[in-house]
Amino acid sequence: MAKELRIGLVGYGFMGRTHTNGYKRVNDFFPELEYRPVLQAVCGRTEDKAKEFAEQWQFKSYETDWRKLIARDDIDAIDIVTPNDTHAEIAIAAAEAGKMVLCEKPLARTAEESLPMVDAIEKAGVANTVWYNYRRIPAVSLAKKIIESGKLGKIFHYRANFLQDWTIDADLPQGGAALWRLDAKAAGSGETGDLLAHCIDTAIWLNGSIKDVSAVTETFVKERMHTQTGKMEKVEIDDACLFHCHFDNGSLGLFESTRYARGHKALYTLEINGENASIRWDLHELNYLEYFDYSDDSEVRGWRKIHITDGDQPYMDHWWVPG
Amino acid sequence: MAKELRIGLVGYGFMGRTHTNGYKRVNDFFPELEYRPVLQAVCGRTEDKAKEFAEQWQFKSYETDWRKLIARDDIDAIDIVTPNDTHAEIAIAAAEAGKMVLCEKPLARTAEESLPMVDAIEKAGVANTVWYNYRRIPAVSLAKKIIESGKLGKIFHYRANFLQDWTIDADLPQGGAALWRLDAKAAGSGETGDLLAHCIDTAIWLNGSIKDVSAVTETFVKERMHTQTGKMEKVEIDDACLFHCHFDNGSLGLFESTRYARGHKALYTLEINGENASIRWDLHELNYLEYFDYSDDSEVRGWRKIHITDGDQPYMDHWWVPG
Amino acid sequence: MAKELRIGLVGYGFMGRTHTNGYKRVNDFFPELEYRPVLQAVCGRTEDKAKEFAEQWQFKSYETDWRKLIARDDIDAIDIVTPNDTHAEIAIAAAEAGKMVLCEKPLARTAEESLPMVDAIEKAGVANTVWYNYRRIPAVSLAKKIIESGKLGKIFHYRANFLQDWTIDADLPQGGAALWRLDAKAAGSGETGDLLAHCIDTAIWLNGSIKDVSAVTETFVKERMHTQTGKMEKVEIDDACLFHCHFDNGSLGLFESTRYARGHKALYTLEINGENASIRWDLHELNYLEYFDYSDDSEVRGWRKIHITDGDQPYMDHWWVPG
Amino acid sequence: MAKELRIGLVGYGFMGRTHTNGYKRVNDFFPELEYRPVLQAVCGRTEDKAKEFAEQWQFKSYETDWRKLIARDDIDAIDIVTPNDTHAEIAIAAAEAGKMVLCEKPLARTAEESLPMVDAIEKAGVANTVWYNYRRIPAVSLAKKIIESGKLGKIFHYRANFLQDWTIDADLPQGGAALWRLDAKAAGSGETGDLLAHCIDTAIWLNGSIKDVSAVTETFVKERMHTQTGKMEKVEIDDACLFHCHFDNGSLGLFESTRYARGHKALYTLEINGENASIRWDLHELNYLEYFDYSDDSEVRGWRKIHITDGDQPYMDHWWVPG
Repeated sequence: MAKELRIGLVGYGFMGRTHTNGYKRVNDFFPELEYRPVLQAVCGRTEDKAKEFAEQWQFKSYETDWRKLIARDDIDAIDIVTPNDTHAEIAIAAAEAGKMVLCEKPLARTAEESLPMVDAIEKAGVANTVWYNYRRIPAVSLAKKIIESGKLGKIFHYRANFLQDWTIDADLPQGGAALWRLDAKAAGSGETGDLLAHCIDTAIWLNGSIKDVSAVTETFVKERMHTQTGKMEKVEIDDACLFHCHFDNGSLGLFESTRYARGHKALYTLEINGENASIRWDLHELNYLEYFDYSDDSEVRGWRKIHITDGDQPYMDHWWVPG
Repeated sequence: MAKELRIGLVGYGFMGRTHTNGYKRVNDFFPELEYRPVLQAVCGRTEDKAKEFAEQWQFKSYETDWRKLIARDDIDAIDIVTPNDTHAEIAIAAAEAGKMVLCEKPLARTAEESLPMVDAIEKAGVANTVWYNYRRIPAVSLAKKIIESGKLGKIFHYRANFLQDWTIDADLPQGGAALWRLDAKAAGSGETGDLLAHCIDTAIWLNGSIKDVSAVTETFVKERMHTQTGKMEKVEIDDACLFHCHFDNGSLGLFESTRYARGHKALYTLEINGENASIRWDLHELNYLEYFDYSDDSEVRGWRKIHITDGDQPYMDHWWVPG
Repeated sequence: MAKELRIGLVGYGFMGRTHTNGYKRVNDFFPELEYRPVLQAVCGRTEDKAKEFAEQWQFKSYETDWRKLIARDDIDAIDIVTPNDTHAEIAIAAAEAGKMVLCEKPLARTAEESLPMVDAIEKAGVANTVWYNYRRIPAVSLAKKIIESGKLGKIFHYRANFLQDWTIDADLPQGGAALWRLDAKAAGSGETGDLLAHCIDTAIWLNGSIKDVSAVTETFVKERMHTQTGKMEKVEIDDACLFHCHFDNGSLGLFESTRYARGHKALYTLEINGENASIRWDLHELNYLEYFDYSDDSEVRGWRKIHITDGDQPYMDHWWVPG
Repeated sequence: MAKELRIGLVGYGFMGRTHTNGYKRVNDFFPELEYRPVLQAVCGRTEDKAKEFAEQWQFKSYETDWRKLIARDDIDAIDIVTPNDTHAEIAIAAAEAGKMVLCEKPLARTAEESLPMVDAIEKAGVANTVWYNYRRIPAVSLAKKIIESGKLGKIFHYRANFLQDWTIDADLPQGGAALWRLDAKAAGSGETGDLLAHCIDTAIWLNGSIKDVSAVTETFVKERMHTQTGKMEKVEIDDACLFHCHFDNGSLGLFESTRYARGHKALYTLEINGENASIRWDLHELNYLEYFDYSDDSEVRGWRKIHITDGDQPYMDHWWVPG
């Protein structure tokens, strides 16, 4: 039987819920894993809410001070799902306490803030991860496998975008529990750290390092009411970020992310064009990967829409049934 | 240089325009053809309209009596694009006069009415065709070629539908120049002869003969004002026709056509499922053929969207450039 | 806190896993429900497998005889996910024991076999359901809501199909743990009860009762090795079923289901055409509903692709975030 | 009857064929136009080919020297479809001769080369156009109309790309009749002038002027055999061009064009995101315009796929029938 991995979750927002859901389901589908997550404790500053969250999701206990959580002997791993400005302090303390560190992306607000985290982790020698979960979507993993097989040949282009529309309303305030993502002090950056970070992580994973970048950012709504001060304050995060770049392998990259693309709730698409073949993927069709192979017989050559649950796909043993 | 084929067109409605457009363009794109259509004369009962049509489309002359047209020595082929109730008489007269006969579908209103046409044609030994033009769409021709290659294996299913929505309005009258298609005396049948006839023709061409049929027809709007009588009269055409059938090759067929499918102007789709491969096509994406081949490597197997102008396709020499 | 509903699950195949997954997750997402399922016991004839299933999915206990399971005082509900030939006997016994009865579809192999089940349930007065789960897909529930609003007007057409391709291989045997669906003695019917039953259930829910039917069924592979006898035996289930019908509301229905549509793992689509508006849905795009409304301003009228998690949709409170 | 507009066509390549096709068809569909093009003469340096082209497309005469063509009294308009390096000289001479000037895009190889053309045209006061034909695609014209109606509100984003894959093969030579587009001396630029020029023209038409640009270009195949010298020579055109920009209206633009996107023959897409609504269009689905309007009732809100031939669309009178 799998060993227990006792989780201490810091934060109980949207990401707190998704991580908890993952912990509860992972062993149902992957019973062969070495570890089995146990929902040991959730931590939040507001006692009522922490307690309610613990009850709904069946955590064994709750805390209101993350330092106490880290100090507990019955916690193996600290999962950090709080606003970005708190990541560094918690992660460094957790590493120093010898805990496994599981940190939401982006790592922190700036590179300056992130480097001491890396140092602390390396010094403590603890297991760790940053939650760039898109790599593990089966269709994206298949893309990785096809790329590594060499079927694409020399890569010419990589393009990705992540489009949302949830902050267009100028009356939306900044700050507070739900909207810390609009407050530069808490979030560090806007969608660059929130959405574009995913696009970049997947790109580096699939296509290697980026050599140079020419970027532009924009803040369309310049002032928003701040929930903590009650006043209109300057918005210092970016609403959109676009860039073109060169990858080390000589290909050109084009990236765009925004929260002002009316009609898109969470459109994440990527496409890679190689000499011999191309691949594209769209989060809205999560389980498909599109693939064009120039070496196909030309009479029946065309973009293929591969359904990831059809046949001998890598995650197939863990799926329900084909389809 | 190609020989002249002097056309006498009987009728100047929607189909008169499309045929004329085809005649004017065919040699631009297929200069190697043996014949070159010449717009010799158009024929219609109303002189003003026949003259206007001739001028707009550059016919050399016009007639108001189709018998005179057939009698002319300078006409090689009679193209019949009049309402269905007139096809038989004109076609038989044209064949007897030794003209090539080009007849719009459906051949006539009933099998009884059609057989003498076939007899006349065979007796006269004249060249002839019925305008089931969908066979010649490049993607449909490619489907034919793939099927003949044997790639599909044993065929299990053939399904097709043709959906329109243009007669839903109960205030639309029946009869007259534009709306003879709603008048059973002129049209013989409703969408069975109009739309479903195309589906059946393509099906027989691609999948062989039909052995038995179980059909249902429906007339949703029971009475419409008749433009000739000025009174509400019973509608005797069918508004929709659905059937399932067996083909001689053992496959099951499913067909549907209607003029009451709100939201569809002219949706014609077909799909063939074989043991090893499947094909589907959609008139709204005219130049694509979708193809699924089970013998593909399972990791990258999926429906392929073949663009008919990509590469070594049969009509490619006559296209602009790939894409 | 929600009351416990102690589940006794009979069967541990594919449907056993999906039901269990549902029981484990339902309260995470719907914390306000009156009941909370508890995985009390799973029952299967092979002790090793029942035990293993109980451990993987965290059932508190297991049984090897369903009569013992029904007799237990600590079980509130019997969930029947065994082959179809066993549904009636188990359901009747469960009802007589006063348990809630949750039975997989189809109810039984024939109407004759099903009627005593209904009688037993009614006599016992116990809560019960048959697992036609597609009704509860948010996009299908939205379709229901739109239809009930009257936006479609008079209904002309309903069409649905359910296409799979998993039994094309003639070497696939019939009978046994995995393949009882191919054995008429265990399954009663082929895809008529398996897939088409879903199409019919959704259709009746959305469009009312069916008045008459003209159907055809086909068995493409006539003989298969039987895993219990070791011999080639006649296949008595249907591989495909097609029918057209009239609904009580005057609309025409067209249905098709098959396990021989190469390239389709589980394509379930439905479309309803009304006088004023149409709706269509595709299981492969689970969270979208397509909608065409003729009353839209004609300049911007077109099929709308409604994302079910966008905005004020009925299930939205239980979803993650929009998108 | 429409007045004659006697065309003298300089060049007989791919664009020569498309322009000629347009001239031959325009009055069939737009009989009310003031002018009627007449195919007076085609001009090309190789006599055999000029003659053959004239015969196939039914030009009344041919020339081998464009200066003679311009000198002819029976020519009203000079249509220039030659390589880009010849545009300026021909256009200036035609303007000075008082002819209408119809020039293929891009206007010339550089701004320096183009300005004297503009001066000559203005001085001569002759009618003129540059063939940015995408503006006149009905769906793009509808986009323009919707934008002008104000339905989109403040514009945040404009993105467009034009992807092809026809020059990936490194063995493709540069120069000569067919491949002058790869020769910088003849073409001036690569896909920047060829494809991206279309994207930019449409963008400016729909979204106003561009304020600043940050661009990158790339030449993936550095050397190609030159058909005139027979030697490997440096390729000086750009194979791909990407840029981000600000428009004068404050929106961000993102553009990409390439001839190295394997799997795309001619993918031209554009999307505009406004505060209240968004629009997108794809050349592969020429007759559709997608439209998302946030002011729709949220329950049935979604991207609409507007079929340009449905209903009261601006070009509808010139179409066949709806659909």
